[in-house]
Amino acid sequence: MSIINAAKEAKAASVLMATANETLKNKALLAIAEALEANKYAIIEANDADVKRSEEENLSKPLLKRLKFDENKINDVIEGLKSLIGLKEPVGVTHFSRELDQGLELYQVSCPIGVIGVIFESRPDAFVQISALCLKSGNSVLLKGGSEAALTNKVLSNIIKKATTKVGLPKGWIGLLESREDVSAMLKMDEEIDLIIPRGSNEFVRYIMDHSRIPVLGHADGICHTYVDQYADLDMAVDVILDAKTQYVAVCNATETLLVHEAVAASLLPRLDVVFKQKEVIVNGCDRTRLYMEAKPATEATWGNEYLDYEISVKVVDDLDAAIAHINRFGSGHTDAIITGNQESALKFMDHVDTGNAFWNCSTRFSDGFRYGFGAEVGVSTNKIHARGPVGLEGLLIYKYKVIGQGHIAGDYASGKKTFTHKNLDKKFMDV
Amino acid sequence: MSIINAAKEAKAASVLMATANETLKNKALLAIAEALEANKYAIIEANDADVKRSEEENLSKPLLKRLKFDENKINDVIEGLKSLIGLKEPVGVTHFSRELDQGLELYQVSCPIGVIGVIFESRPDAFVQISALCLKSGNSVLLKGGSEAALTNKVLSNIIKKATTKVGLPKGWIGLLESREDVSAMLKMDEEIDLIIPRGSNEFVRYIMDHSRIPVLGHADGICHTYVDQYADLDMAVDVILDAKTQYVAVCNATETLLVHEAVAASLLPRLDVVFKQKEVIVNGCDRTRLYMEAKPATEATWGNEYLDYEISVKVVDDLDAAIAHINRFGSGHTDAIITGNQESALKFMDHVDTGNAFWNCSTRFSDGFRYGFGAEVGVSTNKIHARGPVGLEGLLIYKYKVIGQGHIAGDYASGKKTFTHKNLDKKFMDV
Repeated sequence: MSIINAAKEAKAASVLMATANETLKNKALLAIAEALEANKYAIIEANDADVKRSEEENLSKPLLKRLKFDENKINDVIEGLKSLIGLKEPVGVTHFSRELDQGLELYQVSCPIGVIGVIFESRPDAFVQISALCLKSGNSVLLKGGSEAALTNKVLSNIIKKATTKVGLPKGWIGLLESREDVSAMLKMDEEIDLIIPRGSNEFVRYIMDHSRIPVLGHADGICHTYVDQYADLDMAVDVILDAKTQYVAVCNATETLLVHEAVAASLLPRLDVVFKQKEVIVNGCDRTRLYMEAKPATEATWGNEYLDYEISVKVVDDLDAAIAHINRFGSGHTDAIITGNQESALKFMDHVDTGNAFWNCSTRFSDGFRYGFGAEVGVSTNKIHARGPVGLEGLLIYKYKVIGQGHIAGDYASGKKTFTHKNLDKKFMDV
Repeated sequence: MSIINAAKEAKAASVLMATANETLKNKALLAIAEALEANKYAIIEANDADVKRSEEENLSKPLLKRLKFDENKINDVIEGLKSLIGLKEPVGVTHFSRELDQGLELYQVSCPIGVIGVIFESRPDAFVQISALCLKSGNSVLLKGGSEAALTNKVLSNIIKKATTKVGLPKGWIGLLESREDVSAMLKMDEEIDLIIPRGSNEFVRYIMDHSRIPVLGHADGICHTYVDQYADLDMAVDVILDAKTQYVAVCNATETLLVHEAVAASLLPRLDVVFKQKEVIVNGCDRTRLYMEAKPATEATWGNEYLDYEISVKVVDDLDAAIAHINRFGSGHTDAIITGNQESALKFMDHVDTGNAFWNCSTRFSDGFRYGFGAEVGVSTNKIHARGPVGLEGLLIYKYKVIGQGHIAGDYASGKKTFTHKNLDKKFMDV
């Protein structure tokens, strides 16, 4: 199907998706879970072919790892679908209600955004999760997967489409886009697509942001910091830093820069020198860092590095204020942590650091939708509007205002014949 | 001051604004109110000079009307400031809290967006209101007013800056930009400015959207519809339509297109023919409309018109579904109303119409922050993300996640040594 038809179908379906009730949506989610279970081997077969072809095409190891969709991953996805069923219905929730005047009532009610465009590399599990989140939140979704996962995505898309339309979801609520040209076409469809969620490399996300009027939800960089305060428990600091840097290096919530208060540099850095060497972590350090541990000399450019590898930037700072200023200058607003035993320092840090996720005494690696208990995530947002940090269902919703009157006209209030009462009600929409 | 310095100062100030407490912010709002009162005549004098010069430069009547900042308007603005003081503190509100594991707690806490860039034509009252909303929500603000209001804006900006820094707000939280070149510079400053709010003509807003990576909050078009259902009370319909079209024509929430169910066309349209002629409203009607009232023939292009004048598009539709489809195709997602005595039609309309404000039995003119009781508004948004409809304080806020641990590391959960508890807490952040 052409992208234009797919987008028009998705937009038409979005009106029906917005009013699909909880029972229908949960039935559809269950139908997907059952269909994945029933078609497990067809999926694995398609994925094996994708993996084999991609190996021959020399796809990088991390991408190959993400592409692999084996029985364990399928089972995880099925579990995820079931937990999504258990979440509260997010659409039609009255956020507040207010009497504007006698017989004139205002309601702010949650509703889906409309049509979500998702563009991503590899990761068939993300394909299913994001589709399921869009379904639960009443959105249509257009998915553009990478060519490396072409066969897997096709099988998954067919399974999901068939299972959900069978139980009554509108045809066209989910569309799979396959060609590279589809991406540029998609970026221009601001009449049909309401939000784009890109999942991929930084360059890729920036490209999307620069080439579309459609709002983009996602993160370009994950330059996360861990700051060790002068009041830190240094045993804790060593454990947390090691986890934050090395537990899984290829992810956006791994710590890329370590900031150390000068008062603890002499005691902390030699210990890190040992453990970093054990883990083969390359260190790029400022002059003061290099007094206490082996490190390549850092330059100004060092502080903007997102390594996604066994490599870290280390800087000794004068005090808490200097740490905050450094993060607000070089950070990407993803996740930043302070290690300290002092509550005042911690609260100041968490308030003043301009970041989506401000942590105290724990690893930056916790910044994740599953770990936060959101059931699933569409990604981690470093946006400053709409949704920030790990984004679950909430980020796929907006609201509309509904006003019920009895023939009320604005002229009566302009002339002074009537005045507004503005009394808060405690009514849900349709307790009318 | 150069725009680059102003923007850097605003960004630096935003960190302090984010942590300014309720008392300080309310003191600053009161100081603005008092300073406006004390400097009333200096403001009026500057405004008189702006109005006089703009008259000589043949500024249009509606813009001249908006530019005028007389004692009444100043008093309204002072009242507005006082009502803003009374609103609940919006920053630092815990939306939810959750135990991730023993001793590891997650909080979602409201915080300001950062630096708001506002670009607007005329309207000194909007200048003060938007600055005040930014202050209350803890944001820095860079304002670029139109050259027609140059003297007024300069006086207002000086008054606000002096009054607020005197009570302790950080210098630079508010900046006035004055040259036309400042606008293009502003659009490129995505490192310093987090959100742009344009207030002006449609062309102007679209230009901004097309020339910046910074998210834009605002509406391009206000193509509002009123649909008269077959079950409508026609007396009510006539009154509401007349108000929605003619109570104030130059505004974005005026009705531009009337849709009429064919079952009531023969009884309603001749009545509208009479009242529209009395008010000198020009009608552009479809073929069926022209059977019952005097109208110029409508073309396909008619349905996309935003007249902002005594002119209206009228179309007879087959049924409710056709009305919904028309609005979803031609509407701008601003405000759309149904007149009907039938609850089922009303609820279907309000659910299926993709609009920020869905009204039942009242005038589209109610779509406004003051009328909704928001105290003030930064504008009406037709965005599908972040904030929709009239935007008050809420649209100037976002949240951050704060996580408090005791040295927790992600590795323990990856290895299975520990598992997440994900228990909802009912704690505010800092009930720690």
